[in-house]
Amino acid sequence: MKTRLTETLGIELPVLLAPMAMISGGRLAAEVTRAGGLGLIGAGYGDAKWLQREVDLAEGARVGVGFITWSLAQNPGLLDTALARRPAAVMLSFGDLEPFASPIRAAGVPLIAQVQTLDQAGRALDAGADILVAQGGEAGGHGMGGRSTFTFVPDLADYVAARSAETPVVAAGGVADGRGVAAALVLGADGVLVGTRLWASSEALVSPVAQRRGIAASGDDTLRTRVYDVARQLDWPDEYDVRALRNSFLETWHGHDAELAAQRQEVIGRYEKAVAAEDFNVAAVLVGEAVGLVHDVRPAAELVREMVRDARRILNR
Amino acid sequence: MKTRLTETLGIELPVLLAPMAMISGGRLAAEVTRAGGLGLIGAGYGDAKWLQREVDLAEGARVGVGFITWSLAQNPGLLDTALARRPAAVMLSFGDLEPFASPIRAAGVPLIAQVQTLDQAGRALDAGADILVAQGGEAGGHGMGGRSTFTFVPDLADYVAARSAETPVVAAGGVADGRGVAAALVLGADGVLVGTRLWASSEALVSPVAQRRGIAASGDDTLRTRVYDVARQLDWPDEYDVRALRNSFLETWHGHDAELAAQRQEVIGRYEKAVAAEDFNVAAVLVGEAVGLVHDVRPAAELVREMVRDARRILNR
Ligand SMILES: Cc1cc2nc3c(=O)[nH]c(=O)nc-3n(C[C@H](O)[C@H](O)[C@H](O)COP(=O)(O)O)c2cc1C
Ligand SMILES: Cc1cc2nc3c(=O)[nH]c(=O)nc-3n(C[C@H](O)[C@H](O)[C@H](O)COP(=O)(O)O)c2cc1C
Repeated sequence: MKTRLTETLGIELPVLLAPMAMISGGRLAAEVTRAGGLGLIGAGYGDAKWLQREVDLAEGARVGVGFITWSLAQNPGLLDTALARRPAAVMLSFGDLEPFASPIRAAGVPLIAQVQTLDQAGRALDAGADILVAQGGEAGGHGMGGRSTFTFVPDLADYVAARSAETPVVAAGGVADGRGVAAALVLGADGVLVGTRLWASSEALVSPVAQRRGIAASGDDTLRTRVYDVARQLDWPDEYDVRALRNSFLETWHGHDAELAAQRQEVIGRYEKAVAAEDFNVAAVLVGEAVGLVHDVRPAAELVREMVRDARRILNR
Repeated sequence: MKTRLTETLGIELPVLLAPMAMISGGRLAAEVTRAGGLGLIGAGYGDAKWLQREVDLAEGARVGVGFITWSLAQNPGLLDTALARRPAAVMLSFGDLEPFASPIRAAGVPLIAQVQTLDQAGRALDAGADILVAQGGEAGGHGMGGRSTFTFVPDLADYVAARSAETPVVAAGGVADGRGVAAALVLGADGVLVGTRLWASSEALVSPVAQRRGIAASGDDTLRTRVYDVARQLDWPDEYDVRALRNSFLETWHGHDAELAAQRQEVIGRYEKAVAAEDFNVAAVLVGEAVGLVHDVRPAAELVREMVRDARRILNR
């Protein structure tokens, strides 16, 4: 399956692993690459030791690294750590990528930018991004929620066609099976970035208890919230929130910002205990709407190959 | 293009006109039917004279009628008015359809149910719905915003396959061109329901001033809000809001519920004047994210045919 994405990155299948913070580790990334796609390690909030270890765990497989841009800005040395390991690509999401674009390009590494609005897409192209990822609000994890994959992908494809026709567009948000891959391609994408489906893979650094919750959940069981960033003491900029599975913690706090602020310290303490205890009535299960399409935990390489095989079959009908 | 939808409704193309309240009139519905799809007149909030007139304006073309279910419950006689005109289908959206399902089925008229959650889908099947429309939150007009087309369509397709395999599933929300039609089909839908794109058609009962705003807008320029239902004094149940184009009225009031409630009477007065003056800095332009894909106002029949032709071309690539 050749697209502008596979050609730009020198891969066989138009599937990227989402750089899920602390979840997309080296083994998972390596497996996605081994299947023919490209694995991106999720550097998350800046633990250099974790990143070094996970790059080691990829055992020389061709993988990339993804950063949370506003967090990277607080710890820019982490980019040097990553570039020193000669990543196959660097992906930047959530924040101003301009300061990091030059060193990435100077290292000869393809720059992937994940965007949530057309305005952000324009700024990413200005900065020299080589690949744009259109993230819809159905996506798991952080994002903006203002757009959805179904319209944002063709919108961005048209935008890019007019401004920078050779730049590949990748669809993120809701792609969990062959139908999703096929739909992304016909909407005008050159490939897909997959989070939630690969969160439920054997190699993901996720608690099996959380994965069981995901498997039991319906697509109607997630929502976008800011509650977890308060509980986790993460300084996310105001414009971002996170999609997570509903649970009794969200039932209690979502939509009750003032009370949450008032009881912040207590909530943080309780939250940390719940994480340690793997109590997912409280702790976050960050998955997207696509969790309704996830019914098992399987090896990542198998999932990637199946997705593309099914997409091919659907498109050949 | 044969699907379970075209067979159930006896139409040629798997495209339904969304029953946009007071906007999808008889002429627009007739044109969509003439193109090979099925037009649905948008009965809106219960004006029997308007409905009779618009059915007359369809001049005998085979068209259906769509109701806002909670509003129909306040004026159930309107269903008899519609059934007396032998509609090709009746569509119910937004509320408990159970009380209306029997008379519709007794009249031998196909019942189309638009749903926003899997739970609603289950209740619609229990009531005997013949066709389910999966509405994603990117859709123009009212809805729930909890799901998006990209994941809700395959979710609903799987749900229906397990419970009632012969029931067609229709995608609504974000379908504005051949890419959208093709994507809906590969996601598992049997057809599409189109609002925003046909809102910008020559036959839609929309102010050309509003249409010009829509054409100028980007897909990033809409949001879901409750402000307009306050200003228009419509008693929508709490779970629904409406997607509309941003303007200075929404800039002022969206997210300021308390102030809006306090100044309600004044705002209503100002709103009514703005509608009369076609001042769309204030008056509502109810369109979906797909407005970014809309660049002109053209005859509806041409739009429908082009969408399907392009979808066919994309799927045959
Ligand atoms: C558990 C989880 C963690 C995520 N963490 C990150 C992250 O650290 N950086 C990032 O760019 N995106 C992150 N994302 C978002 C993904 O890049 C991507 O947009 C999303 O997973 C795509 O939607 P999907 O989950 O429906 O596949 C995360 C997603 C999930 C599910
Ligand atoms: C202006 C407008 C008015 C609408 N009014 C109704 C209505 O009265 N009843 C209804 O069932 N749906 C209504 N809808 C929603 C449509 O049924 C449909 O879900 C939606 O238009 C599909 O998404 P799209 O706008 O992206 O095509 C309306 C949509 C628009 C744009």
